[in-house]
Amino acid sequence: MGEFELIDNFKKILAKPSKSVLVGIGDDTAVTLPPKSRLLWTIDCVVENIHFDFSYSSPKEVGWKALAVNLSDIAAMGGKSCYALVSLVIPKRITEKKLSEIYQGIKECAQWAKVDVIGGNISKGDSDFVLDITVIGEASKPLTRSGAQEGECVAVTGASGFSAAGFCALKKWGKRARSKYPESTEHHLRPKPRLDFAQVLAKNGVSSLIDISDGLSSELNHLSKESKVGIEIEEKLLPFEPEVKKIAEEMNRDPLSFILHGGEEYELLMTFPFSKFASISGLALQYGVPLTMIGHTVRSPRKVQLRDRKGKLKNLLPKGWTHF
Amino acid sequence: MGEFELIDNFKKILAKPSKSVLVGIGDDTAVTLPPKSRLLWTIDCVVENIHFDFSYSSPKEVGWKALAVNLSDIAAMGGKSCYALVSLVIPKRITEKKLSEIYQGIKECAQWAKVDVIGGNISKGDSDFVLDITVIGEASKPLTRSGAQEGECVAVTGASGFSAAGFCALKKWGKRARSKYPESTEHHLRPKPRLDFAQVLAKNGVSSLIDISDGLSSELNHLSKESKVGIEIEEKLLPFEPEVKKIAEEMNRDPLSFILHGGEEYELLMTFPFSKFASISGLALQYGVPLTMIGHTVRSPRKVQLRDRKGKLKNLLPKGWTHF
Repeated sequence: MGEFELIDNFKKILAKPSKSVLVGIGDDTAVTLPPKSRLLWTIDCVVENIHFDFSYSSPKEVGWKALAVNLSDIAAMGGKSCYALVSLVIPKRITEKKLSEIYQGIKECAQWAKVDVIGGNISKGDSDFVLDITVIGEASKPLTRSGAQEGECVAVTGASGFSAAGFCALKKWGKRARSKYPESTEHHLRPKPRLDFAQVLAKNGVSSLIDISDGLSSELNHLSKESKVGIEIEEKLLPFEPEVKKIAEEMNRDPLSFILHGGEEYELLMTFPFSKFASISGLALQYGVPLTMIGHTVRSPRKVQLRDRKGKLKNLLPKGWTHF
Repeated sequence: MGEFELIDNFKKILAKPSKSVLVGIGDDTAVTLPPKSRLLWTIDCVVENIHFDFSYSSPKEVGWKALAVNLSDIAAMGGKSCYALVSLVIPKRITEKKLSEIYQGIKECAQWAKVDVIGGNISKGDSDFVLDITVIGEASKPLTRSGAQEGECVAVTGASGFSAAGFCALKKWGKRARSKYPESTEHHLRPKPRLDFAQVLAKNGVSSLIDISDGLSSELNHLSKESKVGIEIEEKLLPFEPEVKKIAEEMNRDPLSFILHGGEEYELLMTFPFSKFASISGLALQYGVPLTMIGHTVRSPRKVQLRDRKGKLKNLLPKGWTHF
């Protein structure tokens, strides 16, 4: 199949774009109406055998996740995702059938998030299979990493550690891990960022927001550094999920390492004034989103510290996922 | 050097962004004021040993070209490029020095085009070195491939064939080809899309516009198909450049194959009513852009035909660059 047939094939699989898309796939660029207030824009890529592995990920899941990680970045600004472009670098060994299934996964995620896929690029690859996706979103008041103030709550949606634990389980037991640890493997293979709740947070007095894709410890350090505040986290407040504990046990690892340093987690980490605690907790309940307060911000020291179960404070260094 | 140091390094090299950039490199997404009228958006990638080769391209040139090919897509809609995100997949063998020089090339091209580089992504690669760049632009009246009417002029800026001829010369003689064939090699290594003139065209009655990055024959066929008109091209009107002829001669090839089918050319192909011929030619002169009328559109047959020097019409099939 040639380049143009591959593009046509993708176009056929995708849903019809919404009215704000003036020119979709097939011209030199896509054309849309502009966002109304602020334009948010991100790009993120996944590479075979570095970010995913077909021995335990289905092609559909690969497509889903490649888009989802970008949606998470827009959510992490309190924004709404609008459009996506997909750029693929395809080596010979990737079959057309696999590609069609990947497209299908991208489509499913796009429909779930109400995002239009409006173009992209296809290139031959020498050896690596690369999916680079870029997403445009909008927000009237984007929430950055630098808005946290002294004396605020630090809270996280869902539970961290699932994805890293799921990843280890898949590495060890392959596809069999899915039935044994459904929650953790699902979090790793088919993440669902908190798209709606992120927009709710932006409108309800959250002071800073970030996703925890690089791991909780790294993202806490980003928040602390960019907002110029210290953060104290309570170990006893961290959500220890039974599956995460079980996988850690089977691997002879401390579950805390998954929770604090496990990456590829698309939950939201946030700060807000204590006065907002009741209202934001109420909204979380209303939207069915688990929200856990895990600590608070302090004036000094300007770093991240973890209070262990014995009450002792120690520095929490960024040990999350990093390339290189 | 870690991921975050690499990003910081890039940030230091880049120029300070303009005022419309509200959040640049370093948060979950970039944030900008939205374009005023229509948003144009494209993504294009270059892969080492497929699109470029360090044996004859300097890292600066690789960076320049990776951005320039995207700017060309925005120009091909008659738009103005505004912002760029850069996504890199970097295998171990790429040194930090090389990366810094690539950043420098991206910066130089961005400054030349008055574009802000406002974010991106860095990922480890297993084997391939991939630069994926996405650009946002704006236009009040985007020019698509589908606006050509029956009985219009078909014209092209500059001369086609330089890039393909330059590529062949570099493949054969390596860096030595640069002094021997400066124009062709420069076109291939450091293309300069017609950014300003594209915007002028959009305001002056051009009916369709496209860049010839896939080769003149392919792009003529795109125009014909999307606009539902036939196109007749005159061989004797095509710009035969001395360097292109010379390289073709040395390679025992027909220069016409470079001119018609050579890809990676960032000139503009357009149609406009004959009544606009004088005014558009005048503007080309004013902007110092060579503009050659190479044919005209016809009602039927709805395909692209080339009239050779003997006056005989034959079908011109798309034989330009295609992956796969």
